[in-house]
Amino acid sequence: MSDETTSVNELRILVEKFVAERDWHQFHNPKNLSMSLAIEAAELMEHFQWLTLEEGAKVKLDEKRKHDAGEELADCLAYVIAIANAMEIDLSETLRAKMIRNAVKYPAP
Amino acid sequence: MSDETTSVNELRILVEKFVAERDWHQFHNPKNLSMSLAIEAAELMEHFQWLTLEEGAKVKLDEKRKHDAGEELADCLAYVIAIANAMEIDLSETLRAKMIRNAVKYPAP
Amino acid sequence: MSDETTSVNELRILVEKFVAERDWHQFHNPKNLSMSLAIEAAELMEHFQWLTLEEGAKVKLDEKRKHDAGEELADCLAYVIAIANAMEIDLSETLRAKMIRNAVKYPAP
Amino acid sequence: MSDETTSVNELRILVEKFVAERDWHQFHNPKNLSMSLAIEAAELMEHFQWLTLEEGAKVKLDEKRKHDAGEELADCLAYVIAIANAMEIDLSETLRAKMIRNAVKYPAP
Repeated sequence: MSDETTSVNELRILVEKFVAERDWHQFHNPKNLSMSLAIEAAELMEHFQWLTLEEGAKVKLDEKRKHDAGEELADCLAYVIAIANAMEIDLSETLRAKMIRNAVKYPAP
Repeated sequence: MSDETTSVNELRILVEKFVAERDWHQFHNPKNLSMSLAIEAAELMEHFQWLTLEEGAKVKLDEKRKHDAGEELADCLAYVIAIANAMEIDLSETLRAKMIRNAVKYPAP
Repeated sequence: MSDETTSVNELRILVEKFVAERDWHQFHNPKNLSMSLAIEAAELMEHFQWLTLEEGAKVKLDEKRKHDAGEELADCLAYVIAIANAMEIDLSETLRAKMIRNAVKYPAP
Repeated sequence: MSDETTSVNELRILVEKFVAERDWHQFHNPKNLSMSLAIEAAELMEHFQWLTLEEGAKVKLDEKRKHDAGEELADCLAYVIAIANAMEIDLSETLRAKMIRNAVKYPAP
């Protein structure tokens, strides 16, 4: 399983199954989930909090630190997906549409 | 293009192209990007900030508000992907591995 | 009015009066307020998002940018105080106690 | 020491002394500190993440949970003050000015 061979929907199903099996839909309110995403984003920031930009760029060269930061990033992605599931938002369509709008806002040179 | 027919890698390429065309790699340091993700997550929270949980659950029933929240969610996903690109992290593998660890931490009944 | 001649309680009263006059106690739930503080902290981060540490250190030398960042910082403080008001927490006592605990955790050389 | 008898400046000195004794000024860049404030705000949110608004309002009735949330709030205040110290911003003046602007934006009925 890797990003080349995995559809976004497969990740959605993975998260959905996890939530359903634990009967967590009762907690998966979009308000709670938006807080959860912000909390996980903050945990990711902790890995870079006191680093210079140069040091931050080198985190990926250290296997252990890359792995740890990657786990926080996965938690962020899990909540992005959980929100998409709870709100019935197609992530691929929405991202593509947003990138088109962004391209208007920030034209390429 | 939808989540069923889009691979994670296609979204990665979409974001990568956008960044490269604008020569933004110089700003796409993991430290900066982790801040950016937290900022976008906060903008998503704004849509639920003063709502009750019940009101939050109903945002998806209002076309305009669902769309607006969806745009913030897309921004969050764009930064998750930008971080994965900058740090060379496979999102599908990392999410799957994290879900297995989470399943140990929170066993299904 | 300045930090030397202003008690913490005077700022608490300032915030409390503002909230009461607008009948906002109904919204000033600690859950909502903790989200609000995180949202304002993110708005403060926006001022430093794409800057190097060196550039960040110089923001205070630019009158306009210092003022703008200061306004976000004031919003953060307003929510810290609003939470203290809603939860009946004495900030001075709590901060002093926390600093003593921090001093044990991070002993001075 | 309590909010009635403590000036804002006394808290500023408390934080400043702590930072100076540990030679942490080198890390106390406004960019890093704005991340730190957002991280602490997220840790405060964790106390309310899965609660209903009603449950959130009752956290203050539980001595242990009130204390724990209070510690996170103190950390947030410490970083607000650290940023004010690093950027030479008077918090009382800035907050008062901001509340006057807010009163124009949100007129009392």
